[in-house]
Amino acid sequence: MAHLNILLITCSIGLTIVAAWMPDVRPDLQTKQDKVLAHFIGNSTDYFKILDHNDESVLVGAKDVIYNVSLHGLREIGRLEWHSTDADRELCALKGKPERDCHNYLRVFARRPNGEVLLCGTNSYKPRCRHYTPVEMSSEEAAPAGHAYALRYEVSRDVEAQGLCPYSPAHNSTYAFADGQLYSATVADFSGGDPLIYRENLRTEQYDLKQLNQPDFVGAIEKNGFVLFFFRELSMEFMNFGKAVYSRVARVCKNDKGGPYNHGKSWTTFLKARLNCSVPGDFPFYFDEIQAISPVVESGSKSLVYAVFTTSVNAIPGSAVCAFDVDDILAAFEGDFKSQKDSQSHWLPVEREQVPKPRPGQCVEDSRTVSSIAVNFIKTHPLMENAVPAVHGRPLLTKVNLHHRLTAIAVDPQIRSLNGAYYDVIYSGTDDGKVTKFINMLTTHPNSTVDRLKTVVISEMQVLPLGTPVRDLVISSKKNSLVVVSDGSLVNVPLHHCTLIVDCLGCLSLQDPICAWDLQTHECKNLATSQHKFGTKTYLQSLNTTKKAAASLCPHIPSAETVSFVTMAPPPTEEQKLLYSNVAAAAGNQPSLEQLPSGGDDFGLNKITLTSMDPDDIMPNLNDPQKSTASVDEIRHASGSSYLLITFSIFGIFMLGSCVGVICVKANSHMRDSQMDESHRNHFGKPIQFKHQNTGKDINLLMGSNPYATTQKTPNLDLEKDRSHECKNSTEHLEKELPCKTSTLMKVKRTYI
Amino acid sequence: MAHLNILLITCSIGLTIVAAWMPDVRPDLQTKQDKVLAHFIGNSTDYFKILDHNDESVLVGAKDVIYNVSLHGLREIGRLEWHSTDADRELCALKGKPERDCHNYLRVFARRPNGEVLLCGTNSYKPRCRHYTPVEMSSEEAAPAGHAYALRYEVSRDVEAQGLCPYSPAHNSTYAFADGQLYSATVADFSGGDPLIYRENLRTEQYDLKQLNQPDFVGAIEKNGFVLFFFRELSMEFMNFGKAVYSRVARVCKNDKGGPYNHGKSWTTFLKARLNCSVPGDFPFYFDEIQAISPVVESGSKSLVYAVFTTSVNAIPGSAVCAFDVDDILAAFEGDFKSQKDSQSHWLPVEREQVPKPRPGQCVEDSRTVSSIAVNFIKTHPLMENAVPAVHGRPLLTKVNLHHRLTAIAVDPQIRSLNGAYYDVIYSGTDDGKVTKFINMLTTHPNSTVDRLKTVVISEMQVLPLGTPVRDLVISSKKNSLVVVSDGSLVNVPLHHCTLIVDCLGCLSLQDPICAWDLQTHECKNLATSQHKFGTKTYLQSLNTTKKAAASLCPHIPSAETVSFVTMAPPPTEEQKLLYSNVAAAAGNQPSLEQLPSGGDDFGLNKITLTSMDPDDIMPNLNDPQKSTASVDEIRHASGSSYLLITFSIFGIFMLGSCVGVICVKANSHMRDSQMDESHRNHFGKPIQFKHQNTGKDINLLMGSNPYATTQKTPNLDLEKDRSHECKNSTEHLEKELPCKTSTLMKVKRTYI
Repeated sequence: MAHLNILLITCSIGLTIVAAWMPDVRPDLQTKQDKVLAHFIGNSTDYFKILDHNDESVLVGAKDVIYNVSLHGLREIGRLEWHSTDADRELCALKGKPERDCHNYLRVFARRPNGEVLLCGTNSYKPRCRHYTPVEMSSEEAAPAGHAYALRYEVSRDVEAQGLCPYSPAHNSTYAFADGQLYSATVADFSGGDPLIYRENLRTEQYDLKQLNQPDFVGAIEKNGFVLFFFRELSMEFMNFGKAVYSRVARVCKNDKGGPYNHGKSWTTFLKARLNCSVPGDFPFYFDEIQAISPVVESGSKSLVYAVFTTSVNAIPGSAVCAFDVDDILAAFEGDFKSQKDSQSHWLPVEREQVPKPRPGQCVEDSRTVSSIAVNFIKTHPLMENAVPAVHGRPLLTKVNLHHRLTAIAVDPQIRSLNGAYYDVIYSGTDDGKVTKFINMLTTHPNSTVDRLKTVVISEMQVLPLGTPVRDLVISSKKNSLVVVSDGSLVNVPLHHCTLIVDCLGCLSLQDPICAWDLQTHECKNLATSQHKFGTKTYLQSLNTTKKAAASLCPHIPSAETVSFVTMAPPPTEEQKLLYSNVAAAAGNQPSLEQLPSGGDDFGLNKITLTSMDPDDIMPNLNDPQKSTASVDEIRHASGSSYLLITFSIFGIFMLGSCVGVICVKANSHMRDSQMDESHRNHFGKPIQFKHQNTGKDINLLMGSNPYATTQKTPNLDLEKDRSHECKNSTEHLEKELPCKTSTLMKVKRTYI
Repeated sequence: MAHLNILLITCSIGLTIVAAWMPDVRPDLQTKQDKVLAHFIGNSTDYFKILDHNDESVLVGAKDVIYNVSLHGLREIGRLEWHSTDADRELCALKGKPERDCHNYLRVFARRPNGEVLLCGTNSYKPRCRHYTPVEMSSEEAAPAGHAYALRYEVSRDVEAQGLCPYSPAHNSTYAFADGQLYSATVADFSGGDPLIYRENLRTEQYDLKQLNQPDFVGAIEKNGFVLFFFRELSMEFMNFGKAVYSRVARVCKNDKGGPYNHGKSWTTFLKARLNCSVPGDFPFYFDEIQAISPVVESGSKSLVYAVFTTSVNAIPGSAVCAFDVDDILAAFEGDFKSQKDSQSHWLPVEREQVPKPRPGQCVEDSRTVSSIAVNFIKTHPLMENAVPAVHGRPLLTKVNLHHRLTAIAVDPQIRSLNGAYYDVIYSGTDDGKVTKFINMLTTHPNSTVDRLKTVVISEMQVLPLGTPVRDLVISSKKNSLVVVSDGSLVNVPLHHCTLIVDCLGCLSLQDPICAWDLQTHECKNLATSQHKFGTKTYLQSLNTTKKAAASLCPHIPSAETVSFVTMAPPPTEEQKLLYSNVAAAAGNQPSLEQLPSGGDDFGLNKITLTSMDPDDIMPNLNDPQKSTASVDEIRHASGSSYLLITFSIFGIFMLGSCVGVICVKANSHMRDSQMDESHRNHFGKPIQFKHQNTGKDINLLMGSNPYATTQKTPNLDLEKDRSHECKNSTEHLEKELPCKTSTLMKVKRTYI
């Protein structure tokens, strides 16, 4: 014992307090405004819930209606309305619920194999389900104008839905539909105090805190003859240390038929295990509150469920994404049971000898033949000893931000990169309207035989208005479309931004496995749609290198060729120029003094703009009206070092202005001189006027290069328009047909001068 | 049970994930470079440890030496060297310790009532103590040149110090010296595996994890017949859930003489309790690792110990400052004992009937008369059931920053503010060289009878080089001096910055209770030194108001008077001007279009600089070479809105330049015209030259107002020099004698024009 102490103490001696791990996503991540392709707007009391989706459309449960919304343009292509009766609404109000909740919020949708549709709603706090039978339609009926795919169903049954559908539209309920049966995880009473996992006749025990203790259900999946439920709940085993919420996965067998005798309405196979999403270490740091899961993703040989976790609501806000192998989950249910001898004891593993044989909780042919002892054991020992470990034993992403936490997740599985590797591209929404996109890659460290997990954050996009929580994410790979769902809106943004990038470095810097730079057409292409052949050398991609390395990959065009590239394009606006100088300074890339404008160089400012950009470190800047959200470090650097730059720039402008003044006066006086006008001696007292007279080609050209000529131009707010800065490293584009706004002007000017 | 669930579930339904609490100090706090008054430099292997201090000097334990350093100028005014013997050093190296650790690091210092001094050192991993007897000195001897207070002692005893002094210089040991006896909390073996709390003959049980489990001691105090030890340790009671570190306070009675019979070497009064520094809530968030304590602070009627806590090293980095009332601490030791029936049981309170009578662990006249049962009970039940609550039930300060945690604390107690209220001003150091200064005030909310605790952060100063941990802080109120201690240096900075502020609003914005604006002398005064009478109306202070409210307090000087204020001072540098525009924009205070320069206004830029400053929201900017560390929000705002401003500014400069050009040419041509020189027609082809000829007063003045004339000036890095920006809101200073660099020039110019 002493020796153990020795080791540990000597380790901790003199230890400077350092962060043993740092979040993968830093709070100062540069968030960009996403390009919104389409909206579907309701209001926040609609409590939108995605009930089903395919590559063409989504079904959105809302207030008194279910919408069928096309993924292309988010247009409503059908709806089915179902209002509560007046009697139900009045009763709801009488029970003290606010009017806005006394509606029928549609929360459950399922298609039966026979084509019937099951739909359940809160029905003003008196949940009901309806069975709809499809109606044969004539061809004219089937496609009324504007409702090409209208739902045409008739109600065949209308039944009470206690235990199938929540009472409140905001309750964290979930369900799975398997083999024609609905497995629901919700509450079975008006007040929400009776949580349950239910399937026709079978339910978890009422008010049994060992089975479910104030759960918040986040998702359910069917797999290998089981239905798995993911939720967070108050941890019974922790109770002695105050309250704590733990994350769980529970499972039931699909062929569970209930127990014998008086156990006929009880699950004989309900078991749960803790989900371990923690940063490993001497003192593991747990993200304890699961918030959302993805559907099962077939990732290589594994079936994975990706999940979002957060710290407790009173803790320092932190979020993580963990993946769980379905095999690991199922293995946990084959391990030891956890039990508490009495209320004053620790929760400890049940010794193998004390577990009844055959092992309780297994999926058996007919659970009604199981012994009462086994059923009782499973009822009193629903918790497994071992937590389910996360894949790689650590989160795939960790995030610490005082302003938001992750709330939702979607996975675009098995995207093939240029080198043939497959990546699950993960999208995770935040409670303030952002979507973080990232991948994970395993790198083998030179000094280690262990693969190291590396998180590559591709982007963080502001999709919803700041402060609006993302409730769900729907991916349609086929349509290159990500639908971001809030309580009252659907917003469609691009899944990938490859084709919006116009320069090689920008394309490589994305680090998106689906984006590659086409060396032949000079475009950033989406590999999924570009009919390329893997292994050909006409594409570039750089997923796990520094930006410097990425820059070195991009082709360098000899400068001799640049002179021939003359395209007429407007000069950069002053805003853009300042932006560039800031970015240049931010990148720690101050122009050298040789590059700075001297008093005698009329084009000093342009020169800064055009020569001071180091292609390294410049992230592609997609549609960024909020350039101000640049990373803190960048801004700090910029505000420090750009003063010098700006000072010199201003000096340049000043001198430029002086010259213009001189030239104007001279030209003017030249004209007047030539006209033998002798009145110039009085000119000094007059206000100086720029008359833009046609005093010669040189002057015109200078005025054309006057950056203030375009000051009134509004800042670019649209992605396509704002390509000017993509051209800042102009040499890359010289072979291209795309107009580059900068650089060309200088050429023109030089040609003239 | 169901009803309880109902309440809780309905509360959690539909809850958006929000941060239930936000840290008082945000990561984007604007850190300023502090004004370093003096240095005392060693190197980091010196492991400086403050062993004693008074208002004049500090004693610093270091490698083979103890320094006496004056607080005024941090000059060494004495030293006492004590090297390990060669034999000890060789043995140390033989045992495998690195050479740098095989020295005598002096860690313990105490003055005995008889004038003797006790000094203990690690002595190359073989700790020893020496007793020094003061030597009578002749008056010449007493004050040798440069060593006015040299220590002159003779060694009277030299003994082994196992259990008194740590073996490693970096070990987190502590001690208290009370009634002539040393109470040490350290380790008693070479490897550090035998922690103990020791006083002559009495110690905690060896290897008893219930008493001490891998403790890190952070401080000890003597109070009310007890000695209290503060430490963190592995929590035995949590062990079933993995490892966790908890913070503790332990106490022993000073009159403990050990138990009867074979308990003669055991404490009969050793008890410990958990320290609860947590953010209250449904799920309290604990800061579990105590890092440092202050000495006892008599704060009103209470005796408080202020302490710094952090989250665990693997967790999201968070820090907090909590205060504990000594009465609350002692009360915890009068409560229930905590015990564990067996290793598989929870730790539960011991029922009152099961506690032996008389109650064990009390301070009694002669502990050797206590029964063995009582001594055994106290040995097996050292942990109290109740944690010690923090004063106000919550931290006084919370801080979340990925880059640093708090490490040290010092309190300047009971600073009287202008309105007569007393505040404990708290200084807390970080592991990256910063010092945060803050106070707490209780505000009564209009709609509540409960006082609310409000944290007012006065400043965060970068004192040590970034990355250097602050190990200790020493306050000398009398000298207005804060000594910041790192492993290898002492740095002296001002305790208060009042007198460095030159404007009223800056003074009020500090929110420092000791700083007040003197309306008569127009100075920001330190109330402690300014001989003011409390209650007189010649001072202004604003501790708990918005900056807007503070601004309204400051006297507004009628603008008529301003014209008479003409002081010759250099114009602001361009850096300063840009800084101002950024600050103005950052404050959400864009100049209106009326204030913007038009093409015809030669002094447009000056106008922006001077008129766009809103006194509201301008924090006094003390000595800030790192202006770039402005708050994120400010920068964001600035980078957004200042583009417009800068654009217009540049346009102004351009036009200014044009005018200068025109004027130069005109003046030139005027001269030439007057000389009847006809060669001007060829002039256009020549390079334009500003010859600075004496072409008249007007031109000279314009050149004088040319901001580029001062571009070469280096940025101000010193506090006193950088007062220019304090004058930006010029109206406040117009009655003052201090030179204000801005504003005056405009007056001059206008006078001429």
